[in-house]
Amino acid sequence: MAPASLKRVEKIEELRAAVAEARRAGKLIGFVPTLGGLHAGHGSLIEAARRDCGYVVVSVFLNALQFGPGEDFDAYPRDLEADQAFCERHGADVLFAPSHEEMYPREQLAFVEVDRLSGRLGSAFRPGHMRGVATVVAKLLNIVQPDFAYFGEKDPQQLAVVRRMTEDLNMPARIVACPTVREADGLAMSTRNRYLSPEERRRAPALHQALEKARSAAEAGERSAAALAAIVRGHLQRSEIEPQFVEVVDPDTLEPLETVTGRALIALAAYVGKTRLIDNVIVEV
Amino acid sequence: MAPASLKRVEKIEELRAAVAEARRAGKLIGFVPTLGGLHAGHGSLIEAARRDCGYVVVSVFLNALQFGPGEDFDAYPRDLEADQAFCERHGADVLFAPSHEEMYPREQLAFVEVDRLSGRLGSAFRPGHMRGVATVVAKLLNIVQPDFAYFGEKDPQQLAVVRRMTEDLNMPARIVACPTVREADGLAMSTRNRYLSPEERRRAPALHQALEKARSAAEAGERSAAALAAIVRGHLQRSEIEPQFVEVVDPDTLEPLETVTGRALIALAAYVGKTRLIDNVIVEV
Repeated sequence: MAPASLKRVEKIEELRAAVAEARRAGKLIGFVPTLGGLHAGHGSLIEAARRDCGYVVVSVFLNALQFGPGEDFDAYPRDLEADQAFCERHGADVLFAPSHEEMYPREQLAFVEVDRLSGRLGSAFRPGHMRGVATVVAKLLNIVQPDFAYFGEKDPQQLAVVRRMTEDLNMPARIVACPTVREADGLAMSTRNRYLSPEERRRAPALHQALEKARSAAEAGERSAAALAAIVRGHLQRSEIEPQFVEVVDPDTLEPLETVTGRALIALAAYVGKTRLIDNVIVEV
Repeated sequence: MAPASLKRVEKIEELRAAVAEARRAGKLIGFVPTLGGLHAGHGSLIEAARRDCGYVVVSVFLNALQFGPGEDFDAYPRDLEADQAFCERHGADVLFAPSHEEMYPREQLAFVEVDRLSGRLGSAFRPGHMRGVATVVAKLLNIVQPDFAYFGEKDPQQLAVVRRMTEDLNMPARIVACPTVREADGLAMSTRNRYLSPEERRRAPALHQALEKARSAAEAGERSAAALAAIVRGHLQRSEIEPQFVEVVDPDTLEPLETVTGRALIALAAYVGKTRLIDNVIVEV
């Protein structure tokens, strides 16, 4: 199933040429943008792209623009050989791994901003983060020019911002959302799980459990957003996990809800030790 | 030279299909975005596109997003039949004339901002204008996906912002700048010249004359930006024209200069009666 060999490309012009050749051959182009540190969650995105498209591009670019001061830019895993082997195993055609200088050859002045959505879901804790995400995704989409681009549901704000950006700016790529992939004990796959000590790793599934408790309560009739958030907070507290935020919001607009009447997204960010993890669940009542 | 007939398209998907067909036929795509009210300045852009490209798209879209309250959005000429005949005479292949609803089917949340450049050249007088321009040009470039897009040098801020946007966001289109086209008496072609009374029209060439006086002074050895601006202001005053701003700036960064040492852009906006006109000149010393 996997192609004979994966092409690794570091230059924008070389990537454009490879994609243009695939397009001339009549292939649909699928694109999976990543920060590297690839895990099974990324694997599911590559596999989804593989199902839809004849040519799959994975990018590994640790985008400094979306990290704030004091965040984990320096600590973030960088192992391009491992990521390349991972892409090859999952059947990608090209790994695009540009340098910072290739992506930002001079000071970046142009930015994409997505009003309101960028300010939701505890983004006060990461000022400028969504502007950095939207801008680099716009750049990558303009470089790769895919038919379809794949994003995980694990980061619902990123998904909403990127989707709204492509729609509002009439970008030709279609955004495809893929379900969060989890460990056997429910912990959402994340590159940042590598930061956890064994003891923290044992406590971390509480994030998912807390969200599942809230979902059960909603399905059993609880409609109050505040009550559902309290259920999540209570479970995290019992696991000695400090939430940064727990919010019950509209899944598309990310606007806070008071009462759950249709679909709702319960999303959280929480510190397990010093590691900030995110997770979420969709409830439908 | 002109094609047998011009195609007029109002829907984005129809425009995309027409462009895709031209591209499959191996043609380069040229694009001239306009607000309508076409004049010889636009004509020169269409002709430049025609020289470079096998397929030329002109858009006529009066973009509400780039007009501020109290500006001339309502008064701006709207004569699509005249614009269509103009495009046909100049040999365009497609006139893309979308409705406001086609371009903005719901509230626009995503915007392109170009830091610093957007704040130059008297933009304090038109807050949000450059954000509106950058955003609609991004949308149009994503819809048309041209190889080349043509802009007049008459609006140097628009040109600098659009060029920086396409470069910083890795948009595939190349921006081509075309010289300002002038009436016999030097007045820069502008849709807004139609607002001028006969008496105002007689005074309006003073904008160009004032800039030419400053250029002559620079070529004769004047290096002080303040002195060059004073020459422009003095000439305008003698013609009873009120400048909104006169600036001597770097042509690429639009940053104000104190001393002219290489290339400099002298740009102005001025009210002739109630009509705001812009003009500029490049000096090289």
